[in-house]
Amino acid sequence: MKLIANGRIWIETEEGPFLGYGRIELLQKINELGSLKKAATEMKISYRQAWDFVDQMNKRTANPLVILERGGKGGGGAVLTKEGEKAIQLFNDLNTSFQRFLAEAISGMNKNK
Amino acid sequence: MKLIANGRIWIETEEGPFLGYGRIELLQKINELGSLKKAATEMKISYRQAWDFVDQMNKRTANPLVILERGGKGGGGAVLTKEGEKAIQLFNDLNTSFQRFLAEAISGMNKNK
Repeated sequence: MKLIANGRIWIETEEGPFLGYGRIELLQKINELGSLKKAATEMKISYRQAWDFVDQMNKRTANPLVILERGGKGGGGAVLTKEGEKAIQLFNDLNTSFQRFLAEAISGMNKNK
Repeated sequence: MKLIANGRIWIETEEGPFLGYGRIELLQKINELGSLKKAATEMKISYRQAWDFVDQMNKRTANPLVILERGGKGGGGAVLTKEGEKAIQLFNDLNTSFQRFLAEAISGMNKNK
């Protein structure tokens, strides 16, 4: 029987979860849509959940990843900072290495069985 | 802020989950205790859950990982096969490589920040 290696990774700080698949998707949607509300809707999570994710990420790093602008029509915009772009890059690089690790592990496992 | 890479891995077949942290612990307990009931109790899972795990693992590989002996006092014993020992080894080796991958990823992340 062919074996498949699978898994999940995330990045934490000493204070708890920092970046994971969902949070990175949220940062990317914020960058695309410029709005936390629209990003939350597209991800099918509540505005409150999205806000909590952003708040947590912002508190767990020296410089905020997202700046939330208050007021205006539709409740104000959300802007991804340079730091936010770097966070996406960091996580995506880690995930690319991880997927490579899994792919190599699979071929090793199926050879040595 | 110091970043930490974390994650979980598991092994699947085309039919679904095959080996993961819980299942490996179960195989190890079966090997230690010679009884599925005792292994389940030590892991604080139900006998039914433990039985399902063993049944699934046995069905997803050519040779069974565990042989359940019927009857006798205490409901019969459970014996880890050679194939079961190899499965523990396979998963533990994969997990060791994965922990090394995470450790290297951390040091890379904290250097490049």
